[in-house]
Amino acid sequence: MAANGATAPRRSPSDYSEVQASRLRTSLSLPDVLRNSFKVVDGPPSSATGNPDEIAKLFPVLFGQPSAKIVPADHKSAADSNQRLKVGVVLSGGQAPGGHNVISGLLDYLQDKTKGSTLYGFRGGPAGIMKCKYVVLSTDYVYPYRNQGGFDMICSGRDKIETPEQFKQAQETAVKLDLDGLVVIGGDDSNTNACLLAENFREKKMKTRVIGCPKTIDGDLKSKEVPASFGFDTACKLYAEMIGNVMVDARSTGKYYHFVRLMGRAASHITLECSLQTHPNITIIGEEVAAKKQTLKNVTDYITDVICKRAENGYNYGVILIPEGLIDFIPEVQQLIAELNEILAHDVVDEGGIWKMKLGSQSLKLFEILPQAIQKQLLLERDPHGNVQVAKIETEKMLIEMVETELESRKKQGLYKNVFSGQSHFFGYEGRCGLPSNFDANYCYALGYAAGALLHSGKTGLISSVGNLSAPVEKWIAGGTALTSLMDVERRHGKFKPVIKKAMVELEGAPFKKFSSMREEWAMKNRYISPGPLQYVGPTSNSTNHTLMLELGSRA
Amino acid sequence: MAANGATAPRRSPSDYSEVQASRLRTSLSLPDVLRNSFKVVDGPPSSATGNPDEIAKLFPVLFGQPSAKIVPADHKSAADSNQRLKVGVVLSGGQAPGGHNVISGLLDYLQDKTKGSTLYGFRGGPAGIMKCKYVVLSTDYVYPYRNQGGFDMICSGRDKIETPEQFKQAQETAVKLDLDGLVVIGGDDSNTNACLLAENFREKKMKTRVIGCPKTIDGDLKSKEVPASFGFDTACKLYAEMIGNVMVDARSTGKYYHFVRLMGRAASHITLECSLQTHPNITIIGEEVAAKKQTLKNVTDYITDVICKRAENGYNYGVILIPEGLIDFIPEVQQLIAELNEILAHDVVDEGGIWKMKLGSQSLKLFEILPQAIQKQLLLERDPHGNVQVAKIETEKMLIEMVETELESRKKQGLYKNVFSGQSHFFGYEGRCGLPSNFDANYCYALGYAAGALLHSGKTGLISSVGNLSAPVEKWIAGGTALTSLMDVERRHGKFKPVIKKAMVELEGAPFKKFSSMREEWAMKNRYISPGPLQYVGPTSNSTNHTLMLELGSRA
Repeated sequence: MAANGATAPRRSPSDYSEVQASRLRTSLSLPDVLRNSFKVVDGPPSSATGNPDEIAKLFPVLFGQPSAKIVPADHKSAADSNQRLKVGVVLSGGQAPGGHNVISGLLDYLQDKTKGSTLYGFRGGPAGIMKCKYVVLSTDYVYPYRNQGGFDMICSGRDKIETPEQFKQAQETAVKLDLDGLVVIGGDDSNTNACLLAENFREKKMKTRVIGCPKTIDGDLKSKEVPASFGFDTACKLYAEMIGNVMVDARSTGKYYHFVRLMGRAASHITLECSLQTHPNITIIGEEVAAKKQTLKNVTDYITDVICKRAENGYNYGVILIPEGLIDFIPEVQQLIAELNEILAHDVVDEGGIWKMKLGSQSLKLFEILPQAIQKQLLLERDPHGNVQVAKIETEKMLIEMVETELESRKKQGLYKNVFSGQSHFFGYEGRCGLPSNFDANYCYALGYAAGALLHSGKTGLISSVGNLSAPVEKWIAGGTALTSLMDVERRHGKFKPVIKKAMVELEGAPFKKFSSMREEWAMKNRYISPGPLQYVGPTSNSTNHTLMLELGSRA
Repeated sequence: MAANGATAPRRSPSDYSEVQASRLRTSLSLPDVLRNSFKVVDGPPSSATGNPDEIAKLFPVLFGQPSAKIVPADHKSAADSNQRLKVGVVLSGGQAPGGHNVISGLLDYLQDKTKGSTLYGFRGGPAGIMKCKYVVLSTDYVYPYRNQGGFDMICSGRDKIETPEQFKQAQETAVKLDLDGLVVIGGDDSNTNACLLAENFREKKMKTRVIGCPKTIDGDLKSKEVPASFGFDTACKLYAEMIGNVMVDARSTGKYYHFVRLMGRAASHITLECSLQTHPNITIIGEEVAAKKQTLKNVTDYITDVICKRAENGYNYGVILIPEGLIDFIPEVQQLIAELNEILAHDVVDEGGIWKMKLGSQSLKLFEILPQAIQKQLLLERDPHGNVQVAKIETEKMLIEMVETELESRKKQGLYKNVFSGQSHFFGYEGRCGLPSNFDANYCYALGYAAGALLHSGKTGLISSVGNLSAPVEKWIAGGTALTSLMDVERRHGKFKPVIKKAMVELEGAPFKKFSSMREEWAMKNRYISPGPLQYVGPTSNSTNHTLMLELGSRA
């Protein structure tokens, strides 16, 4: 059964485009430290991001362990032995450009330093570990996927290893395959899970070590030691290319407002980065909406105000970026949805609208200003648990309708005279499976290579960490960060659960500050930038994204 | 007023991305014949594509004139004089990548061969001619737009010069600016119009010559002499990049069917080209649907059949391409819409549905199988004339719902067991304003340069024609094709109107034949190709599109 993509057919280079083939031939750069003799050394003991006492209880074995640095060694280190390793690797969660290169880096480490080792690729995500579904990853197997997008080499999945029964299955697989190590390529949840697995294996006195790798186009898995999650760079560049094109179209045509919804449910990093790359007239950042406790009406009014001011300046067009997760950031929307879920579970929704009496006054007011199509969607489309399906709401279309209504009312007051025409876009799937940028290709390769080195040196419960990313690849540094040091706890069902908190857009951070210092100018003047298609060769091929550079302090 | 974009603010290279700036610095290649001394020579007299007698009546002055060839000359030709020209240029209709380079080519011709000439850019399309709204195009003005996408240098518009009053306005502008020539950059309609203007100027004994240039991403303005319209190459490459990414996503995730609607209302060239570039599982070509007199149910069944067969092979995912204009090709849909327009104009649409009795039996049957959302759209959304808005129908979403319904019914019969999940996409605006590909950049530059040469040599009523496009740029040939030779007549309101017939996808043509020979394999096997982002440098940067190469017989 290929229902979950666990057995996607092998790629054949005869089906490669010229660009794919050219990328396949492109060799990957390694940081000098990984290219030459190196050793793994320990840093100082670590703590946790929050509630260290609780994290210590949850990870009695691993808590407090030091992070690791990979540093040059004069002679071959102890780890450079003739040891043969058996290592598994798994892709977890949504696709992100570069995943195949993490695996390539890991394989190349094993080939370079532990000849005769075996790499198992678990198929279809964590379920592959539990069911012991794998493929042996040889160079022949892996080679056609180097520098290629997607996760189809071994596919991914969203299952979690959570219950005691599931942990037992994972142990059985580790024993059966005699695994020395496991590399988990995933986001915040998957890396939390990787650490639980590491703890569990250690506690059971098993030899299997677990190393994580930071993956997500959303860019919300990062910390001081883990400066970026892979895939973010490529995805943002692809979205920004399309946004730039839409901007040129808007300026050429002069009559459309393009509302562009961008992937990124939890954090608005993608939207912010695309804004920094393209300079749209309006950018909505979910974290700011939440911090300012804005209502949907506030957001609508803000957009409408800009449109009216632009009309006074003679511009009847523009581009507006909206994060996919916007409505999750608006408290009143959350409240309305909670009330609707309650009502829908217990009451009949009558045509006459008497059911609405059950809504609180704030929710009723909000419901009444929503476009009819959205009202219907809220009442009709429910998930298997009977809940409103927030994810299905096309926020960009909703905002177009709400702005339209607001402009109509201002027109009646003589405050707006133009004809408003909104065009909606959602850029999502197009970005998360693109061919990785040079940055993501090299970053992922280094992450995978370093993960191999960490496993080989006996480390567990670390996340592969590659730093100094504003320098050329040769100067990048590598190591591993204690996963427990990234953790805090959340109370769920009365129990503490460890979590790596998602890194949200910080309103005091350099990327947001840069944006907020420019947005008024971008709103009124047309400072559009069209990044154009991602280049692999030539002078424009090695730039990385603004967010990373600003966070690293390398871009004014 | 910038409502129609006629006065888009000037671009400033300080707002250019790295790729834009790099493209700005890239020099353009000219065919050898245009780079060296050349002369313009006449070919044999021409006729018309259809109804030459009627075309002769409509174009008494220009009918039958020969096409022109630009050929090497040993010495400076007569046209290489010190004559100073006054030339206007206008962009007409929707954006297409490369328009700015046509203007650059024209300007460079004037600079190279007729020093001291003046180039007027009419703002906002043909309306700019009628209102004499223009800007003088100096190198300083034009330079920042070289190799850049969009039409915002002088903007475009969709007005037509049709009525006697409008022709008079155009004459007044030509006299006022003392125009020697006018270059019209547009599609089939705009070039027909250009020829009428050329005829009109000649008839009035005015010196103003008119030369057309073939523009449209839709690829439906072409003939033996005019092998391609510019913009098609770039737009298809941008769409194909995104389709390729979606394919990799589909294969990685293994659980979605992506329904991708592509721009191209009249002809399905874009959809066919994208199919040849990416090998999707299903491609619907409007011209084939029309030729086979297929119904919407036929199309739905075809898609559903492939989905069911793929399910048997273990694949629960796929990619389906649909041309924007699909429903315009389905006779029964046209019939339904005609009946609905009639009913909506005269009757009340009652909730009980008694109004449906007025539909013919075939239309009623079709209406009943349409998804509810589409039924509503057909009944509620009307244009200012009260007609159903066919353009607003999201065909890809309609097909998803219809396929869903059909699969449900097959499930009940035990013929399908999987869970179907459709994702819809529309790729449109993102493509028509992209940075032009190397092909479009050079092709447009040559078209503009040749247009200058044709005007200079005294020609009128020709369309700039650059050929031998499968060879390297240096070997391209150039000339002008008599616009009347591309024409036929259509009867409208009892009168013959000249038209350049849109070039539709030919079911006997090489591109369609190639596609149809492969589609069964593509349906069942996953032969996906991901073209990746358009490259400007390196080995993959100079390929052109499959359609052109197959039509020129240069690709197997």
